[in-house]
Amino acid sequence: METIVTSPTKTVRIGAQHPFVIIGERINPTGRKLLSAELAAGNFERVTRDAIAQVAAGAPMLDVNCGVPMTDEPALLARAIELVQSVVDVPLCIDSSIVRALELGLAAYKGKPLVNSVTGEEERLEVVLPLVARYKAAVIGVANDESGISYDPAVRFAVAKKIVERAESYGIPRADVLIDPLAMPVGAVNDAGIVLFQIVRRISEELGVNTCCGASNISFGLPNRHGINRAFLTMAAAAGMNCAITSATEASLREALLAADVMMGKDENCTRWLRHNRAADGSGGRRERRRAPAAE
Amino acid sequence: METIVTSPTKTVRIGAQHPFVIIGERINPTGRKLLSAELAAGNFERVTRDAIAQVAAGAPMLDVNCGVPMTDEPALLARAIELVQSVVDVPLCIDSSIVRALELGLAAYKGKPLVNSVTGEEERLEVVLPLVARYKAAVIGVANDESGISYDPAVRFAVAKKIVERAESYGIPRADVLIDPLAMPVGAVNDAGIVLFQIVRRISEELGVNTCCGASNISFGLPNRHGINRAFLTMAAAAGMNCAITSATEASLREALLAADVMMGKDENCTRWLRHNRAADGSGGRRERRRAPAAE
Repeated sequence: METIVTSPTKTVRIGAQHPFVIIGERINPTGRKLLSAELAAGNFERVTRDAIAQVAAGAPMLDVNCGVPMTDEPALLARAIELVQSVVDVPLCIDSSIVRALELGLAAYKGKPLVNSVTGEEERLEVVLPLVARYKAAVIGVANDESGISYDPAVRFAVAKKIVERAESYGIPRADVLIDPLAMPVGAVNDAGIVLFQIVRRISEELGVNTCCGASNISFGLPNRHGINRAFLTMAAAAGMNCAITSATEASLREALLAADVMMGKDENCTRWLRHNRAADGSGGRRERRRAPAAE
Repeated sequence: METIVTSPTKTVRIGAQHPFVIIGERINPTGRKLLSAELAAGNFERVTRDAIAQVAAGAPMLDVNCGVPMTDEPALLARAIELVQSVVDVPLCIDSSIVRALELGLAAYKGKPLVNSVTGEEERLEVVLPLVARYKAAVIGVANDESGISYDPAVRFAVAKKIVERAESYGIPRADVLIDPLAMPVGAVNDAGIVLFQIVRRISEELGVNTCCGASNISFGLPNRHGINRAFLTMAAAAGMNCAITSATEASLREALLAADVMMGKDENCTRWLRHNRAADGSGGRRERRRAPAAE
């Protein structure tokens, strides 16, 4: 199963045969007071700066969210999409909980974007999926519904299945649906990780669709969040997850996912790993070629 | 399934309910010229120093190998076991390809050790397993046989199954057999990682026994070997592996496996993760408690 998204000049393929795709999370006012204030004032300088920085760091896709309360979010999102597409050429993920914002974002977007997101709630399915179908976009389906986020993996799987099947009824092929199985904070829910890996594997095996995850929630409340996020995404990749909305600028996370690609057989001849390490250490990739514990 | 090994004062439990166990790999003359020369001269100073350093770094177990060609390896190994047990109190893994060395090592050991290793080769099974049974030790069964290391995961699984069943015929319970599914170098064998994770999962589900791996081979020939090893062990842990013979002194590897324990629900209330990060940053574990991308 291959999910394809595009910008006017670039194509990103998400799937088991392709490298893990990091969707840069940075353009999101949640928890960013300065960005919120600037967006409310119609100032998009930080948005374009963040777009350029994330792509420079290697992000193959970016998420764009303009969810500032008490603003005209649909207009803000459409404008942000236009501006981001004017400064970077990667495909985007149009991110809002407001349907009208998704609609204006889709109208403004050039190419085939990813829509973030639809849930399993009836009223969301009925309005978001027709939009996704009309614009021939791809969509993230989040595995919660009217009853909330279930602790029971079987319930979350059932919600995922419902979203995939409903999307098909609107003419959206399975390849264009990515399921977000919902990572709960492992600091509060001890088996959040195990349960998530199980759901990812089951979605991949039984529904055949790709999965995608916001990677910050899992480490909420814990120290050294990047350390937890690295382990989480690496292990989720082992379970079959092929993309995540996460930090594109944290070098250690990017390196961990490059190594995960090597381990999943997604980096033929380790070409990308060798290139990354040449760039990182300037040694031509020759460091540590000997047996690791060789030094006396 | 719980594998229990002991020293006179300590018990280590290996299994799905327990934290990942790092068996410190350092006491091994392979590729260490100074250590080889010293061992050949009967000088064990570096051995005891390495033992103390690894345990100080947090290793719950140590591997002890004295495989120096043209020496009396059985006598060296027995002496090393005695000396290591005199300076540290963790359980040991008695490591040799020479049966007489395993025998003298077992005779010298106080407690219940892990024997490293038996293969699926008939002549090894017939001599090593009776020894393991006589000393009521635990043993690592390596998934190769007379025909070598198969590229076919089904063949390696069959070898593992044969070792487990043969061990039972000698009165060694499944709980006392750990299978090493054999990691091939991913730089040479592109799907070495995927295949290994599949075998680990299958052994865990179908044989119910624990798995254990030497973690250096996977990254042979590649730059930034610790980066590959971290991803490998984290993903192997996600597949159900519960211990590895690897570096106990590489802080980033230890941290990655602590995070893997959190993700596998093996660190209740994240107690060990919090303690580790308090020790590491002196902040009382309060760093990065906010949403990770919060900084402007």
